[in-house]
Amino acid sequence: MSCRVAVLVSGRGSNLQSIIDKSKSREIDAEVAVVLSDNKEAFALARARKAGIEAHYIDPEVTKPVLIGNAEDNYINTLKEYKVDLVCLAGFMRIVKEKIIAEFKWKMMNIHPSLLPSFKGLHVQKKALDYGVRFAGATVHFVTGDVDGGPIILQAVVPVYQDDTEESLSSRILKEEHRIYPEAIDLFSKNKLKIKDNRVFIEGDDGK
Amino acid sequence: MSCRVAVLVSGRGSNLQSIIDKSKSREIDAEVAVVLSDNKEAFALARARKAGIEAHYIDPEVTKPVLIGNAEDNYINTLKEYKVDLVCLAGFMRIVKEKIIAEFKWKMMNIHPSLLPSFKGLHVQKKALDYGVRFAGATVHFVTGDVDGGPIILQAVVPVYQDDTEESLSSRILKEEHRIYPEAIDLFSKNKLKIKDNRVFIEGDDGK
Repeated sequence: MSCRVAVLVSGRGSNLQSIIDKSKSREIDAEVAVVLSDNKEAFALARARKAGIEAHYIDPEVTKPVLIGNAEDNYINTLKEYKVDLVCLAGFMRIVKEKIIAEFKWKMMNIHPSLLPSFKGLHVQKKALDYGVRFAGATVHFVTGDVDGGPIILQAVVPVYQDDTEESLSSRILKEEHRIYPEAIDLFSKNKLKIKDNRVFIEGDDGK
Repeated sequence: MSCRVAVLVSGRGSNLQSIIDKSKSREIDAEVAVVLSDNKEAFALARARKAGIEAHYIDPEVTKPVLIGNAEDNYINTLKEYKVDLVCLAGFMRIVKEKIIAEFKWKMMNIHPSLLPSFKGLHVQKKALDYGVRFAGATVHFVTGDVDGGPIILQAVVPVYQDDTEESLSSRILKEEHRIYPEAIDLFSKNKLKIKDNRVFIEGDDGK
C-alpha cells in the first residue's frame, strides 16, 4: 500500500514538486496526502492545489521561527486527520520541537542542502563557499531534537567550482535534492529503512 | 626549479611514500629534501633512508602531543638548514604551534582523512561511520593556528558502504590521500595556489 505523505513547506516548494511528480508517475511508492504551510503566500500551496492535493495554511501564531504551543497542536491534529504515515519537511522554515517529533518519531524527515554534519543551520551554500570546500551536497535525515543532526538516510555530493556563486551552487545542489528526497520517501514506504545505534541502514542495499 | 619539500611523520609513512614515488618519477615537480620524525621507531624514517633521503628523529621533549619550546626551535632550525620551500605534515601526531606556523606561513600543509569541516581531530573514520554519513573523504589544507581548520587546497570524496569497518573505510580514503597530497604539492611548486579571503584558488583551474 502506498505511503501517505504530508509535506510541510514555507516557500516555493521545488522539493514538493519533485515529490508530487514522482508519486503521480509512480516512480515512488507514495502519495502526497496533504501540504501544510506556515506561510499563507507560499507558492508551494498553489503547486499542491494545482496538482489536486489539499493544501492548508496553518497559522504558526509566533514570529520566532519555531513550531510551538497551540500552533504545534493544530499541525499535529491536522496531520492525524489526514492519517499520514510520513511527514516531510521541505523548506519548512521553523524548528520543530519535542511534541510533534515524538508524535512522528522515525516518521519525520528533513532535507538539508549540505553534506551534514558540515554546515548546519541557514545559508549553508554561502557557508560552504566561504569555507572553500571542494565538494558540497545534500542530506535527507530523520528529524530528532538535534536540529540538522538526526540520522542520515541519503546524501548526494556535488563539486564546488571556483567561480560558483551562492545561486549557481544552490541550483546544482537542488537538482540532487530533487533526486534523493523522493528516493528516501520510497525507501521509507517500502519499509527498507532500519535504525540501529542511531544510524540508518538500508535493507537490501550493499551500498556498492 | 623543483620545490624542496620536508615531510614530517610519526608513523608508517604511506603518504610520504606516495610523495617520494611521484617526485622520483617526476609526476610532480618536487623533491623530498628531508624527513623529520618525533618518533624514533617510525617506519617512515626507514622508507626515507631506503629512498636515499636524509631522515632524522628530533626529540619532541614533551609527552603531550604538541610541538613546543626547545623542540619546536630544533625542528625550525633543521627545516631552515635544509632550505625547504614547503613543509608537509603527513601523519605527524603533534599539534604545531604559532612559532613554526609563522615561520612557514602558507608554506605548510597537512592532510586529514575527512571531508573537512566534518570530523576534525583523531579517529575520524570511526566518527564518520558512527555518524552514518554516506560519503567520506580526505582534505589537504594549509596549516594555520586553527587545528584542521586552515584553507582547503584539495579534497576527494569516497562512498561509505553499510558494511564498512574503520579499516575498510580508512583504506579507501588512504588511496585518495595518496593521489591528492602529491597533487597539492605539485600545484604549490608550480605557484598555482593563491589565497584570497582565506580561500585557496587554483590558478588556471576552472574546476570543471
